[in-house]
Amino acid sequence: MQHTEVTTEQAPKFYGYFRSSSSYRCRIAFNLKGVQYDFTPVHLKNGAQKEAAFATLNPQELLPVLVTPTGAVLRQSLAILEWLEETHPEVPLLPVEREQRALVRGFAQAIACEIHPLQNLRVLQHLRGPLGCDDTQVTQWLHRWIGDGLAACEALLNEAGTDTRFCFGDTPGLADICLVPQVFSAERFGVDITGLHRVREVCNSCNDLEAFAAAHPAQQPDYEP
Amino acid sequence: MQHTEVTTEQAPKFYGYFRSSSSYRCRIAFNLKGVQYDFTPVHLKNGAQKEAAFATLNPQELLPVLVTPTGAVLRQSLAILEWLEETHPEVPLLPVEREQRALVRGFAQAIACEIHPLQNLRVLQHLRGPLGCDDTQVTQWLHRWIGDGLAACEALLNEAGTDTRFCFGDTPGLADICLVPQVFSAERFGVDITGLHRVREVCNSCNDLEAFAAAHPAQQPDYEP
Repeated sequence: MQHTEVTTEQAPKFYGYFRSSSSYRCRIAFNLKGVQYDFTPVHLKNGAQKEAAFATLNPQELLPVLVTPTGAVLRQSLAILEWLEETHPEVPLLPVEREQRALVRGFAQAIACEIHPLQNLRVLQHLRGPLGCDDTQVTQWLHRWIGDGLAACEALLNEAGTDTRFCFGDTPGLADICLVPQVFSAERFGVDITGLHRVREVCNSCNDLEAFAAAHPAQQPDYEP
Repeated sequence: MQHTEVTTEQAPKFYGYFRSSSSYRCRIAFNLKGVQYDFTPVHLKNGAQKEAAFATLNPQELLPVLVTPTGAVLRQSLAILEWLEETHPEVPLLPVEREQRALVRGFAQAIACEIHPLQNLRVLQHLRGPLGCDDTQVTQWLHRWIGDGLAACEALLNEAGTDTRFCFGDTPGLADICLVPQVFSAERFGVDITGLHRVREVCNSCNDLEAFAAAHPAQQPDYEP
Protein backbone atom coordinates (compact mmCIF):
# COMPACT_ATOMS: atom_id res chain seq x y z
CA MET A 1 0.00 0.00 0.00
CA GLN A 2 1.32 3.34 -0.96
CA HIS A 3 0.77 6.45 1.02
CA THR A 4 2.00 9.94 0.55
CA GLU A 5 3.11 11.90 3.54
CA VAL A 6 2.51 15.58 3.14
CA THR A 7 4.62 17.49 5.61
CA THR A 8 3.17 20.91 6.13
CA GLU A 9 4.36 23.32 8.72
CA GLN A 10 1.69 23.56 11.39
CA ALA A 11 0.19 27.03 11.71
CA PRO A 12 0.78 28.89 15.00
CA LYS A 13 -2.25 29.35 17.23
CA PHE A 14 -3.08 33.01 17.78
CA TYR A 15 -5.28 34.30 20.60
CA GLY A 16 -6.53 37.82 19.99
CA TYR A 17 -9.47 40.20 19.95
CA PHE A 18 -10.61 42.31 17.04
CA ARG A 19 -10.22 45.65 18.83
CA SER A 20 -7.04 44.90 20.80
CA SER A 21 -4.39 47.04 19.17
CA SER A 22 -1.58 44.68 20.14
CA SER A 23 -3.50 41.85 18.42
CA TYR A 24 -3.93 44.17 15.43
CA ARG A 25 -0.13 44.64 15.27
CA CYS A 26 0.40 40.89 15.01
CA ARG A 27 -2.30 40.47 12.36
CA ILE A 28 -0.57 43.05 10.14
CA ALA A 29 2.75 41.23 10.53
CA PHE A 30 1.20 37.83 9.74
CA ASN A 31 -0.30 39.33 6.60
CA LEU A 32 2.88 41.12 5.50
CA LYS A 33 4.89 37.93 5.92
CA GLY A 34 2.19 35.64 4.52
CA VAL A 35 2.09 33.53 7.69
CA GLN A 36 -1.11 31.52 8.18
CA TYR A 37 -2.42 31.33 11.74
CA ASP A 38 -5.15 29.53 13.58
CA PHE A 39 -7.18 32.24 15.34
CA THR A 40 -8.98 31.89 18.67
CA PRO A 41 -10.94 34.97 19.75
CA VAL A 42 -10.80 35.98 23.42
CA HIS A 43 -13.59 38.40 24.28
CA LEU A 44 -11.73 41.10 26.23
CA LYS A 45 -14.78 43.26 26.84
CA ASN A 46 -16.59 40.30 28.46
CA GLY A 47 -13.53 39.47 30.59
CA ALA A 48 -12.71 36.14 28.89
CA GLN A 49 -9.01 36.88 29.49
CA LYS A 50 -9.61 36.45 33.23
CA GLU A 51 -11.19 32.99 32.91
CA ALA A 52 -9.05 30.06 34.05
CA ALA A 53 -8.64 28.59 30.56
CA PHE A 54 -6.96 31.73 29.30
CA ALA A 55 -5.28 32.90 32.51
CA THR A 56 -3.37 29.60 32.57
CA LEU A 57 -2.10 30.37 29.08
CA ASN A 58 -1.14 33.91 30.06
CA PRO A 59 -0.91 34.81 33.74
CA GLN A 60 -0.83 38.47 32.67
CA GLU A 61 -4.44 38.03 31.48
CA LEU A 62 -3.58 40.04 28.39
CA LEU A 63 -3.72 39.54 24.65
CA PRO A 64 -2.21 38.54 22.33
CA VAL A 65 -0.79 35.05 22.87
CA LEU A 66 0.87 32.97 20.22
CA VAL A 67 1.44 29.24 20.59
CA THR A 68 4.19 28.13 18.24
CA PRO A 69 4.01 24.88 16.24
CA THR A 70 6.27 23.26 18.87
CA GLY A 71 3.99 24.39 21.70
CA ALA A 72 5.90 27.35 23.15
CA VAL A 73 3.53 29.95 24.59
CA LEU A 74 4.62 33.46 23.62
CA ARG A 75 3.15 36.59 25.18
CA GLN A 76 3.64 40.30 24.44
CA SER A 77 3.14 41.51 20.90
CA LEU A 78 6.63 42.94 20.36
CA ALA A 79 8.18 39.63 21.46
CA ILE A 80 5.85 37.78 19.10
CA LEU A 81 6.81 40.17 16.29
CA GLU A 82 10.54 39.66 16.92
CA TRP A 83 9.96 35.88 16.91
CA LEU A 84 8.09 36.17 13.60
CA GLU A 85 10.96 38.26 12.22
CA GLU A 86 13.53 35.65 13.29
CA THR A 87 11.56 32.63 12.08
CA HIS A 88 10.19 34.21 8.88
CA PRO A 89 12.92 36.63 7.81
CA GLU A 90 11.47 37.03 4.31
CA VAL A 91 9.61 40.38 4.07
CA PRO A 92 11.71 41.88 6.88
CA LEU A 93 10.10 44.16 9.47
CA LEU A 94 13.42 45.62 10.62
CA PRO A 95 16.20 47.24 8.59
CA VAL A 96 19.64 45.63 8.39
CA GLU A 97 21.73 48.49 9.76
CA ARG A 98 22.01 48.44 13.57
CA GLU A 99 21.33 52.09 14.33
CA GLN A 100 18.35 52.03 11.99
CA ARG A 101 17.07 48.92 13.75
CA ALA A 102 17.33 50.77 17.06
CA LEU A 103 15.46 53.77 15.67
CA VAL A 104 12.64 51.56 14.39
CA ARG A 105 12.45 49.56 17.62
CA GLY A 106 12.54 52.78 19.64
CA PHE A 107 9.64 54.19 17.64
CA ALA A 108 7.62 50.99 18.10
CA GLN A 109 8.29 51.18 21.85
CA ALA A 110 7.32 54.85 21.99
CA ILE A 111 3.87 53.46 21.22
CA ALA A 112 3.97 50.05 22.90
CA CYS A 113 5.62 51.22 26.15
CA GLU A 114 4.34 54.79 26.47
CA ILE A 115 0.94 55.18 24.82
CA HIS A 116 -0.84 51.86 24.57
CA PRO A 117 -0.37 50.75 28.24
CA LEU A 118 -2.19 53.88 29.41
CA GLN A 119 -5.27 53.30 27.26
CA ASN A 120 -5.60 49.61 27.99
CA LEU A 121 -9.10 48.42 28.87
CA ARG A 122 -8.13 47.45 32.43
CA VAL A 123 -6.57 50.86 33.08
CA LEU A 124 -9.69 52.67 31.87
CA GLN A 125 -11.77 50.33 34.05
CA HIS A 126 -9.61 51.26 37.05
CA LEU A 127 -10.06 54.97 36.31
CA ARG A 128 -13.85 54.62 36.10
CA GLY A 129 -14.11 52.14 38.99
CA PRO A 130 -11.80 52.57 42.01
CA LEU A 131 -10.78 56.14 41.08
CA GLY A 132 -14.36 57.18 40.26
CA CYS A 133 -13.34 59.23 37.21
CA ASP A 134 -16.15 60.69 35.13
CA ASP A 135 -16.29 60.78 31.31
CA THR A 136 -14.53 64.15 31.16
CA GLN A 137 -11.62 62.92 33.24
CA VAL A 138 -11.28 59.71 31.22
CA THR A 139 -11.36 61.70 27.98
CA GLN A 140 -8.75 64.10 29.36
CA TRP A 141 -6.59 61.09 30.32
CA LEU A 142 -6.84 59.56 26.84
CA HIS A 143 -6.14 62.86 25.09
CA ARG A 144 -3.11 63.47 27.29
CA TRP A 145 -1.37 60.15 26.67
CA ILE A 146 -2.49 59.40 23.13
CA GLY A 147 -2.32 63.02 21.97
CA ASP A 148 1.08 63.85 23.46
CA GLY A 149 2.40 60.39 22.60
CA LEU A 150 1.47 60.61 18.93
CA ALA A 151 2.77 64.18 18.76
CA ALA A 152 6.15 62.80 19.91
CA CYS A 153 5.85 60.12 17.22
CA GLU A 154 5.24 62.86 14.64
CA ALA A 155 8.47 64.56 15.75
CA LEU A 156 10.39 61.27 15.53
CA LEU A 157 9.05 60.66 12.01
CA ASN A 158 9.92 64.16 10.85
CA GLU A 159 13.43 63.65 12.21
CA ALA A 160 13.75 60.39 10.27
CA GLY A 161 12.87 62.13 7.01
CA THR A 162 9.54 62.61 5.31
CA ASP A 163 10.37 61.63 1.75
CA THR A 164 9.58 57.96 2.26
CA ARG A 165 6.29 56.14 1.85
CA PHE A 166 6.35 54.52 5.28
CA CYS A 167 7.74 55.44 8.71
CA PHE A 168 11.36 54.47 8.06
CA GLY A 169 11.65 53.74 4.39
CA ASP A 170 9.70 52.64 1.35
CA THR A 171 8.61 49.30 2.73
CA PRO A 172 6.37 48.90 5.78
CA GLY A 173 7.91 47.55 8.97
CA LEU A 174 7.70 47.33 12.74
CA ALA A 175 7.13 51.07 13.20
CA ASP A 176 4.18 51.13 10.79
CA ILE A 177 2.79 47.97 12.40
CA CYS A 178 2.62 49.77 15.74
CA LEU A 179 1.52 53.16 14.39
CA VAL A 180 -1.58 52.12 12.45
CA PRO A 181 -3.39 50.39 15.36
CA GLN A 182 -2.51 53.29 17.67
CA VAL A 183 -4.01 55.77 15.23
CA PHE A 184 -7.09 53.54 14.96
CA SER A 185 -7.41 53.77 18.76
CA ALA A 186 -6.90 57.54 18.72
CA GLU A 187 -9.80 57.87 16.29
CA ARG A 188 -11.95 55.49 18.32
CA PHE A 189 -11.37 57.59 21.44
CA GLY A 190 -11.97 60.86 19.58
CA VAL A 191 -8.41 62.18 19.94
CA ASP A 192 -7.79 64.86 17.33
CA ILE A 193 -4.69 64.13 15.28
CA THR A 194 -5.45 66.29 12.26
CA GLY A 195 -2.29 68.34 12.95
CA LEU A 196 -0.05 65.25 12.77
CA HIS A 197 0.53 65.35 9.02
CA ARG A 198 3.30 62.81 8.74
CA VAL A 199 1.52 60.30 11.00
CA ARG A 200 -1.61 60.59 8.85
CA GLU A 201 0.31 60.41 5.59
CA VAL A 202 2.10 57.22 6.64
CA CYS A 203 -1.11 55.64 7.91
CA ASN A 204 -2.81 56.35 4.60
CA SER A 205 0.04 54.65 2.74
CA CYS A 206 -0.25 51.65 5.06
CA ASN A 207 -4.00 51.34 4.84
CA ASP A 208 -3.75 51.26 1.04
CA LEU A 209 -2.02 47.90 1.41
CA GLU A 210 -4.06 44.72 1.59
CA ALA A 211 -1.93 43.41 4.51
CA PHE A 212 -3.02 46.36 6.66
CA ALA A 213 -6.59 46.57 5.37
CA ALA A 214 -7.24 42.88 6.03
CA ALA A 215 -5.90 43.25 9.60
CA HIS A 216 -8.37 46.03 10.44
CA PRO A 217 -10.65 45.25 13.41
CA ALA A 218 -13.78 45.48 11.25
CA GLN A 219 -12.45 42.67 9.03
CA GLN A 220 -12.03 40.12 11.85
CA PRO A 221 -14.29 37.12 12.46
CA ASP A 222 -14.99 38.24 16.05
CA TYR A 223 -15.85 41.82 15.04
CA GLU A 224 -18.80 43.43 16.76
CA PRO A 225 -20.02 46.82 15.55
CA MET B 1 58.36 64.48 14.32
CA GLN B 2 56.82 61.25 15.28
CA HIS B 3 53.39 60.87 16.67
CA THR B 4 51.41 57.86 17.66
CA GLU B 5 47.77 57.73 16.82
CA VAL B 6 45.77 55.86 19.35
CA THR B 7 42.43 54.84 17.90
CA THR B 8 39.97 54.24 20.68
CA GLU B 9 36.30 53.61 20.16
CA GLN B 10 34.45 56.66 21.37
CA ALA B 11 32.17 55.96 24.32
CA PRO B 12 28.42 56.39 23.76
CA LYS B 13 26.79 59.32 25.55
CA PHE B 14 24.15 58.20 28.01
CA TYR B 15 21.46 60.48 29.43
CA GLY B 16 19.80 59.06 32.53
CA TYR B 17 18.69 59.65 36.10
CA PHE B 18 19.69 57.65 39.14
CA ARG B 19 16.14 56.61 40.08
CA SER B 20 14.74 56.05 36.56
CA SER B 21 14.28 52.32 36.31
CA SER B 22 14.69 52.31 32.54
CA SER B 23 18.04 54.10 33.01
CA TYR B 24 18.90 51.48 35.67
CA ARG B 25 18.25 48.71 33.10
CA CYS B 26 20.78 50.24 30.71
CA ARG B 27 23.38 50.71 33.44
CA ILE B 28 23.21 47.01 34.31
CA ALA B 29 23.68 46.07 30.65
CA PHE B 30 26.64 48.44 30.22
CA ASN B 31 28.25 46.87 33.27
CA LEU B 32 27.55 43.27 32.23
CA LYS B 33 29.03 43.91 28.80
CA GLY B 34 31.88 46.09 30.05
CA VAL B 35 30.85 49.04 27.87
CA GLN B 36 32.14 52.42 29.00
CA TYR B 37 29.73 55.33 28.67
CA ASP B 38 29.81 59.05 29.10
CA PHE B 39 27.00 59.89 31.55
CA THR B 40 24.91 63.07 31.58
CA PRO B 41 22.36 63.28 34.39
CA VAL B 42 18.91 64.68 33.58
CA HIS B 43 17.07 65.65 36.74
CA LEU B 44 13.62 64.10 36.16
CA LYS B 45 12.14 65.23 39.44
CA ASN B 46 13.05 68.86 38.62
CA GLY B 47 11.59 68.53 35.12
CA ALA B 48 14.90 68.84 33.24
CA GLN B 49 13.52 66.41 30.63
CA LYS B 50 11.02 69.10 29.56
CA GLU B 51 13.67 71.76 28.96
CA ALA B 52 14.42 72.58 25.32
CA ALA B 53 17.95 71.17 25.38
CA PHE B 54 16.71 67.73 26.29
CA ALA B 55 13.31 67.81 24.56
CA THR B 56 15.14 68.38 21.26
CA LEU B 57 17.13 65.23 21.93
CA ASN B 58 14.02 63.26 22.83
CA PRO B 59 10.61 64.67 21.89
CA GLN B 60 9.08 62.07 24.22
CA GLU B 61 10.72 63.97 27.12
CA LEU B 62 11.67 60.64 28.64
CA LEU B 63 14.84 58.93 29.75
CA PRO B 64 17.06 57.19 28.85
CA VAL B 65 18.69 58.45 25.67
CA LEU B 66 21.84 57.03 24.16
CA VAL B 67 23.87 58.88 21.54
CA THR B 68 26.03 56.39 19.65
CA PRO B 69 29.65 57.14 18.68
CA THR B 70 28.41 58.01 15.17
CA GLY B 71 25.81 60.43 16.55
CA ALA B 72 22.58 58.43 16.22
CA VAL B 73 20.13 59.36 18.98
CA LEU B 74 18.49 56.26 20.42
CA ARG B 75 15.47 56.39 22.74
CA GLN B 76 13.61 53.69 24.67
CA SER B 77 15.59 51.41 26.95
CA LEU B 78 14.66 48.11 25.27
CA ALA B 79 15.73 49.48 21.88
CA ILE B 80 19.00 50.65 23.43
CA LEU B 81 19.49 47.22 25.01
CA GLU B 82 18.88 45.44 21.66
CA TRP B 83 21.37 47.83 20.02
CA LEU B 84 23.92 47.04 22.74
CA GLU B 85 23.29 43.32 22.17
CA GLU B 86 23.84 43.67 18.43
CA THR B 87 26.92 45.87 18.67
CA HIS B 88 28.50 44.14 21.70
CA PRO B 89 27.44 40.50 21.34
CA GLU B 90 30.01 39.29 23.86
CA VAL B 91 28.30 38.56 27.20
CA PRO B 92 24.93 37.97 25.47
CA LEU B 93 21.72 39.21 27.06
CA LEU B 94 19.50 36.96 24.95
CA PRO B 95 19.65 33.19 24.44
CA VAL B 96 20.40 31.74 21.00
CA GLU B 97 17.28 29.63 20.53
CA ARG B 98 14.39 31.58 18.99
CA GLU B 99 11.56 30.49 21.25
CA GLN B 100 13.75 31.13 24.29
CA ARG B 101 14.56 34.58 22.94
CA ALA B 102 10.82 35.25 22.62
CA LEU B 103 10.18 34.08 26.18
CA VAL B 104 12.92 36.36 27.54
CA ARG B 105 11.77 39.33 25.47
CA GLY B 106 8.17 38.68 26.48
CA PHE B 107 9.14 38.68 30.14
CA ALA B 108 11.08 41.93 29.74
CA GLN B 109 8.04 43.48 28.06
CA ALA B 110 5.71 42.22 30.77
CA ILE B 111 7.61 44.74 32.89
CA ALA B 112 8.50 47.44 30.34
CA CYS B 113 5.09 47.55 28.63
CA GLU B 114 2.71 46.63 31.46
CA ILE B 115 4.13 47.69 34.82
CA HIS B 116 6.66 50.46 34.42
CA PRO B 117 4.53 52.79 32.19
CA LEU B 118 1.86 52.92 34.90
CA GLN B 119 4.23 54.02 37.66
CA ASN B 120 6.08 56.60 35.61
CA LEU B 121 6.59 59.97 37.30
CA ARG B 122 4.40 61.83 34.80
CA VAL B 123 1.55 59.37 35.28
CA LEU B 124 1.69 59.74 39.06
CA GLN B 125 1.79 63.52 38.61
CA HIS B 126 -1.36 63.30 36.44
CA LEU B 127 -3.11 61.21 39.09
CA ARG B 128 -2.29 63.71 41.85
CA GLY B 129 -2.85 66.79 39.68
CA PRO B 130 -5.70 66.74 37.12
CA LEU B 131 -7.38 63.68 38.65
CA GLY B 132 -7.00 64.96 42.21
CA CYS B 133 -6.12 61.53 43.63
CA ASP B 134 -5.14 61.40 47.28
CA ASP B 135 -2.29 59.33 48.76
CA THR B 136 -4.54 56.32 49.34
CA GLN B 137 -5.68 56.26 45.73
CA VAL B 138 -2.14 56.65 44.39
CA THR B 139 -0.96 53.84 46.66
CA GLN B 140 -3.85 51.65 45.53
CA TRP B 141 -2.92 52.40 41.91
CA LEU B 142 0.74 51.46 42.45
CA HIS B 143 -0.13 48.29 44.34
CA ARG B 144 -2.57 47.23 41.63
CA TRP B 145 -0.18 47.54 38.67
CA ILE B 146 3.13 46.70 40.34
CA GLY B 147 1.67 44.02 42.61
CA ASP B 148 -0.40 42.22 39.97
CA GLY B 149 2.29 42.75 37.36
CA LEU B 150 5.06 41.22 39.44
CA ALA B 151 2.73 38.36 40.49
CA ALA B 152 2.34 37.58 36.77
CA CYS B 153 6.14 37.72 36.44
CA GLU B 154 6.42 35.22 39.32
CA ALA B 155 4.08 32.86 37.42
CA LEU B 156 6.12 33.24 34.23
CA LEU B 157 9.35 32.50 36.11
CA ASN B 158 7.87 29.44 37.78
CA GLU B 159 6.72 28.21 34.38
CA ALA B 160 10.26 28.68 33.00
CA GLY B 161 11.73 26.50 35.75
CA THR B 162 13.12 27.42 39.12
CA ASP B 163 16.35 25.46 39.17
CA THR B 164 18.43 28.20 37.57
CA ARG B 165 20.28 31.04 39.20
CA PHE B 166 18.71 33.77 37.07
CA CYS B 167 15.33 34.29 35.35
CA PHE B 168 16.02 32.13 32.31
CA GLY B 169 19.26 30.30 32.93
CA ASP B 170 22.48 30.45 34.84
CA THR B 171 23.71 33.71 33.35
CA PRO B 172 21.91 37.04 33.78
CA GLY B 173 20.17 38.53 30.76
CA LEU B 174 17.48 40.87 29.51
CA ALA B 175 14.82 39.49 31.84
CA ASP B 176 16.97 40.02 34.95
CA ILE B 177 17.94 43.47 33.71
CA CYS B 178 14.27 44.48 33.69
CA LEU B 179 13.27 42.63 36.85
CA VAL B 180 15.78 44.10 39.30
CA PRO B 181 14.90 47.79 38.70
CA GLN B 182 11.18 46.96 38.85
CA VAL B 183 11.63 45.25 42.20
CA PHE B 184 13.64 48.26 43.41
CA SER B 185 10.63 50.44 42.45
CA ALA B 186 8.21 48.07 44.17
CA GLU B 187 10.18 48.42 47.38
CA ARG B 188 10.43 52.18 46.99
CA PHE B 189 6.65 52.41 46.64
CA GLY B 190 6.05 50.03 49.54
CA VAL B 191 4.50 47.25 47.45
CA ASP B 192 4.67 43.98 49.37
CA ILE B 193 6.31 41.24 47.31
CA THR B 194 7.32 38.91 50.15
CA GLY B 195 5.11 36.19 48.62
CA LEU B 196 6.94 36.28 45.28
CA HIS B 197 9.66 33.80 46.21
CA ARG B 198 11.16 33.23 42.78
CA VAL B 199 11.26 36.94 41.98
CA ARG B 200 13.08 37.61 45.24
CA GLU B 201 15.44 34.67 44.81
CA VAL B 202 16.48 35.80 41.32
CA CYS B 203 16.91 39.41 42.45
CA ASN B 204 19.16 38.29 45.27
CA SER B 205 21.33 36.34 42.80
CA CYS B 206 21.53 39.41 40.58
CA ASN B 207 22.36 41.86 43.33
CA ASP B 208 25.25 39.65 44.40
CA LEU B 209 26.91 40.53 41.10
CA GLU B 210 29.06 43.64 40.82
CA ALA B 211 27.41 44.58 37.48
CA PHE B 212 24.05 44.89 39.21
CA ALA B 213 25.32 46.35 42.47
CA ALA B 214 27.26 49.11 40.68
CA ALA B 215 24.14 50.02 38.65
CA HIS B 216 22.03 50.59 41.77
CA PRO B 217 20.55 54.11 42.05
CA ALA B 218 22.43 54.80 45.30
CA GLN B 219 25.75 54.21 43.50
CA GLN B 220 25.19 56.85 40.80
CA PRO B 221 26.94 60.25 40.64
CA ASP B 222 23.56 62.07 40.53
CA TYR B 223 22.15 60.16 43.52
CA GLU B 224 20.17 62.12 46.05
CA PRO B 225 19.07 60.44 49.28
